[in-house]
Amino acid sequence: MRAAVLHGVGKILLEERPRPEPGPRQVLVRVESVGTCGSDVHYYEHGRIGDFVVEAPLVLGHEPAGTVVAAGPGTGRGLLGRRVSVEPGLPDFTCVHCRAGRYNLCPRMRFFGTPPIDGAFCEYVVVHEEFAHPVPDALSDDAAALIEPLSVGVWACRKARVQPGARVLVTGAGPVGLLCMQAALAFGATDVVITDVNPARLRVARDLGASATLDVRENPVSGAGLEPDVLLECSGHPAAIGEAVRAVGRAGRVVLIGMGGDEIPLPLSHVQTRELEVTGTFRYAGTWPQAIALAAAGRVRLDALVTGHYGLAEVERALTAGARDPELVKAVVRPQE
Amino acid sequence: MRAAVLHGVGKILLEERPRPEPGPRQVLVRVESVGTCGSDVHYYEHGRIGDFVVEAPLVLGHEPAGTVVAAGPGTGRGLLGRRVSVEPGLPDFTCVHCRAGRYNLCPRMRFFGTPPIDGAFCEYVVVHEEFAHPVPDALSDDAAALIEPLSVGVWACRKARVQPGARVLVTGAGPVGLLCMQAALAFGATDVVITDVNPARLRVARDLGASATLDVRENPVSGAGLEPDVLLECSGHPAAIGEAVRAVGRAGRVVLIGMGGDEIPLPLSHVQTRELEVTGTFRYAGTWPQAIALAAAGRVRLDALVTGHYGLAEVERALTAGARDPELVKAVVRPQE
Amino acid sequence: MRAAVLHGVGKILLEERPRPEPGPRQVLVRVESVGTCGSDVHYYEHGRIGDFVVEAPLVLGHEPAGTVVAAGPGTGRGLLGRRVSVEPGLPDFTCVHCRAGRYNLCPRMRFFGTPPIDGAFCEYVVVHEEFAHPVPDALSDDAAALIEPLSVGVWACRKARVQPGARVLVTGAGPVGLLCMQAALAFGATDVVITDVNPARLRVARDLGASATLDVRENPVSGAGLEPDVLLECSGHPAAIGEAVRAVGRAGRVVLIGMGGDEIPLPLSHVQTRELEVTGTFRYAGTWPQAIALAAAGRVRLDALVTGHYGLAEVERALTAGARDPELVKAVVRPQE
Amino acid sequence: MRAAVLHGVGKILLEERPRPEPGPRQVLVRVESVGTCGSDVHYYEHGRIGDFVVEAPLVLGHEPAGTVVAAGPGTGRGLLGRRVSVEPGLPDFTCVHCRAGRYNLCPRMRFFGTPPIDGAFCEYVVVHEEFAHPVPDALSDDAAALIEPLSVGVWACRKARVQPGARVLVTGAGPVGLLCMQAALAFGATDVVITDVNPARLRVARDLGASATLDVRENPVSGAGLEPDVLLECSGHPAAIGEAVRAVGRAGRVVLIGMGGDEIPLPLSHVQTRELEVTGTFRYAGTWPQAIALAAAGRVRLDALVTGHYGLAEVERALTAGARDPELVKAVVRPQE
Repeated sequence: MRAAVLHGVGKILLEERPRPEPGPRQVLVRVESVGTCGSDVHYYEHGRIGDFVVEAPLVLGHEPAGTVVAAGPGTGRGLLGRRVSVEPGLPDFTCVHCRAGRYNLCPRMRFFGTPPIDGAFCEYVVVHEEFAHPVPDALSDDAAALIEPLSVGVWACRKARVQPGARVLVTGAGPVGLLCMQAALAFGATDVVITDVNPARLRVARDLGASATLDVRENPVSGAGLEPDVLLECSGHPAAIGEAVRAVGRAGRVVLIGMGGDEIPLPLSHVQTRELEVTGTFRYAGTWPQAIALAAAGRVRLDALVTGHYGLAEVERALTAGARDPELVKAVVRPQE
Repeated sequence: MRAAVLHGVGKILLEERPRPEPGPRQVLVRVESVGTCGSDVHYYEHGRIGDFVVEAPLVLGHEPAGTVVAAGPGTGRGLLGRRVSVEPGLPDFTCVHCRAGRYNLCPRMRFFGTPPIDGAFCEYVVVHEEFAHPVPDALSDDAAALIEPLSVGVWACRKARVQPGARVLVTGAGPVGLLCMQAALAFGATDVVITDVNPARLRVARDLGASATLDVRENPVSGAGLEPDVLLECSGHPAAIGEAVRAVGRAGRVVLIGMGGDEIPLPLSHVQTRELEVTGTFRYAGTWPQAIALAAAGRVRLDALVTGHYGLAEVERALTAGARDPELVKAVVRPQE
Repeated sequence: MRAAVLHGVGKILLEERPRPEPGPRQVLVRVESVGTCGSDVHYYEHGRIGDFVVEAPLVLGHEPAGTVVAAGPGTGRGLLGRRVSVEPGLPDFTCVHCRAGRYNLCPRMRFFGTPPIDGAFCEYVVVHEEFAHPVPDALSDDAAALIEPLSVGVWACRKARVQPGARVLVTGAGPVGLLCMQAALAFGATDVVITDVNPARLRVARDLGASATLDVRENPVSGAGLEPDVLLECSGHPAAIGEAVRAVGRAGRVVLIGMGGDEIPLPLSHVQTRELEVTGTFRYAGTWPQAIALAAAGRVRLDALVTGHYGLAEVERALTAGARDPELVKAVVRPQE
Repeated sequence: MRAAVLHGVGKILLEERPRPEPGPRQVLVRVESVGTCGSDVHYYEHGRIGDFVVEAPLVLGHEPAGTVVAAGPGTGRGLLGRRVSVEPGLPDFTCVHCRAGRYNLCPRMRFFGTPPIDGAFCEYVVVHEEFAHPVPDALSDDAAALIEPLSVGVWACRKARVQPGARVLVTGAGPVGLLCMQAALAFGATDVVITDVNPARLRVARDLGASATLDVRENPVSGAGLEPDVLLECSGHPAAIGEAVRAVGRAGRVVLIGMGGDEIPLPLSHVQTRELEVTGTFRYAGTWPQAIALAAAGRVRLDALVTGHYGLAEVERALTAGARDPELVKAVVRPQE
């Protein structure tokens, strides 16, 4: 099969690789759509993210969807021929964190497209059958791929305990911010304000249901008179974070989703006198069925985020599309085209 | 002012009474709309509900909405002239239950239209300013009145921890069942099945967004292959309750909303082996802002439930309308007409 | 090795069986102590519990502790030579319930001493290394075995959300009731009342820290003026359950631990007007580290429950000891003696 | 009556003031014991804490206990003659935060000894009858006074969801740290490590049940190999906070209790990859019955913290005792002596 392989900073080569064989309880998925993610771009541009360093050729891509074309020994979910969205991180299932239901914190997690585990910018992948989640016909292949970033938003909303009728502030209107926003609306939030410095993204946000948008180059959060119940921080900018945290109302929740370096300043007395709860998210656990249900019911719109398709030979173009085009939201790779 | 006063079983008289004066922290509300409720009907027909016995003339009605026309001493919320939905139960605010946030369980609760406290089938009521909840123009007077029964549904969904993407079974498609159903959808449930024996009500349920309906005269719950995460029981029929509880999936939640006598059979081993959580609701606490936000955002449709309007002189006709017309859902009294 | 094998109702034979070999990720445990449980007695006397029917020779016993004497391939926890308490139910780890942290509800659970899975009344057992929980020297072998029934109590207290300072009513002072009581005290409850009809058991309860005991032949719960926050129901008597539930205070929690037939009457209006939460327990999940920590710190006393030791050849005597001696609390089998 | 009145930085005068009269639902308490708190010292030394500025003569002291000697109109709890611990902050009871059970966040809170509200360094105080909590004879007057700082610890443990068997790190062994530590033990934590730079305080901590103590001048937290489930931060030192947060294990909770300026650095990626929950506490809500129950049951030792008694004429000496004596833990004022 063909695979797009990262061979160093800024260098992706299209190669022939053996098609993987599904092992015990695994299924083989013919990949139809793979979303590109900021972390793919980061590995491509810098060769590392924090402690994760690309030291050998690596296939990026961790947002795959496709069709199950073979099943390994011991499988029993009847997935052959089914269209599936692939959950890209495989925990060990048996450690204390897995047994407690927080398998995203499993210290032995093997995650697609994270060194040294290959990802999905290729024609076929194998995956544990429980992590190949069937999708209904109502979901396109692209939408099935975008269940992964939607899961980030769903997980953030769970951590934030977004309630029906809640007021939510989302800082940052990139793909993750837009999906956090849509997830918050699907959780019943009725007043969801989103910020960015990019008018094109804010326009998309309005199209997707934002109650209001705020271009923070012109209107800082501090002057907007907001007092949200929940802050979903997707910008990763330390200064923006502090300002947004100070806007949150008493007993509010802050979820830090955007990555923004090692340390940020936390307004201690504000957190104390308002008893804010501040947490961060690391991937997700148990979100696929929920995310699929929301997308299939039309509560979240995924296809509207896709602004470009690329073949396997164009992965570099897909990963650099954001730098060329500020209006881009989400580039999708179609390995079979 | 005029008031419709219950003088015994089956006997309501229109009387002149002095217009109440708002006391400290109270506002005076000119009542525009009052929903009728099964409990109003029950007091009218039987003179009692359980331990609550009508022993003196009583004004029924506990779902009022209207306009604030006067404010008593010490008020400070700027409500004069505002349209409000009235939360009809006044707790003592200071007991241990109130201080813990569950003021619906306050043993000194004074509740509209529950002996010996007069209700809202009259032209004016007084209410604590914190329990006169402003509504936006988007809500009609009828919708503002129906925030009360919607609160029952919202409270049930909170108790049930209805999650986005959840599968919910609602048994009973009367007004409360229909509002539980709509609340569940607004909480993000994507698969909401509702049952009844009345095809007209099931038709309304479909119009209001039910994923599926079940006429249990023809299709019992036990044969429907359901395995909901949540059961919102609104029928109050002991036999139906047992059957529905047995359908609920592992780790599911059962909320008993319908009143159905003193005892019901609980399938003990089923509750144990599936670790079901079973609870009941008693009114609500802190639901108005949430219910108003959902209705104002169009997540719940309230006006569609109203099937008849009645003046103060027609309260008896309003309370007997359900017995005459099986297609009736919700009769509303308009005291100013 | 020797094993005590159930060959039909009332018939246990001591047999030689091959010593099991530890498979992948399994360890071999030389069994030192095995608690006997009411369910062992029930299988011995009736050959079944509900849908679980003994259809072939079966080794009972699901409360083993011992020493790890061999480790299979792929093990990595360094357990060789360690004293361990064995968690006796092996889930599949990968189903939706396991992934959500509620592995006790795994539909593919394989549980020691439950047909057709052999248990621990034998000299050696194999167990997944993650379910062989190391114990400190402070715990005796018997105490390490009794971590299993303590887990039932710990799980019940979690389900009941027993808070420090809480008032708890435990109905039934058998081994499980006594361990629920001790667990409640270890969770910080300061007022724990326990009931029974057996004065000997109530005496043990007082020795183990009960705030008060109630002999319900003389003093029914209804007349005791209790208003607990939590009811831990360990009697399984339908009539007793109804009476105890009616005692629980507003917003209280009821956990049904005792098995008592298929259906019990639930006081519906009481559950509703007080908003009680009623649930049942099915084994436990993730309790071992917590239960071991509590026992090792002396917050719970386990050895005090043991009223008799029996060799493998005496398993029948161990299982019938309760019927002979009303003062018996817990019989323990010592397979190596 | 006599009152010790703060007339400016470093200046407290003993004055005669009229004895207060209990108003509606208030009781008059003859004050027997009042704990001194770091905030009293701070007002005495600096005349302000953040936005709270002492602009007129002020009576400090917010940890009073005593005996109810008179009851105002409308009281009904039968408190006359009872010994009580006084909860020193009076919310408005009716705002949205009060109604939700988080009355500590009430924006109209009136708090003893916080400008402009007088406190309890005087012979008599009046208090709402629901905030005069009866104590059993088992509690001394000093212990009844120290229910207030114990409430800080109880509230912190609730926020941290301290579980039985938990591993807890408490940073800072001042009075609040020592009470957080004891509260954690009473919540069932079995491994509670506490840090300080003062050996005398660490000695007290060991006497009160610390599992281990750490003198962080010699042994920094980072080298101690701890991986607590919960961090109760009572030092308020920004650098110490960062180091301690980095020690917390996956899915751990951090509660910031110590006041330490406006901003602290938060290790963002650590919070994210471990999904830590970070929050702060602002006083407490609904803790008195729980704290009294724990102290009365001997689960927490309060008298052991008291290292000095002072009359009303000696309040300045009480407030400066800590500066003179590093071994001091808690000075108590006895207004009647």
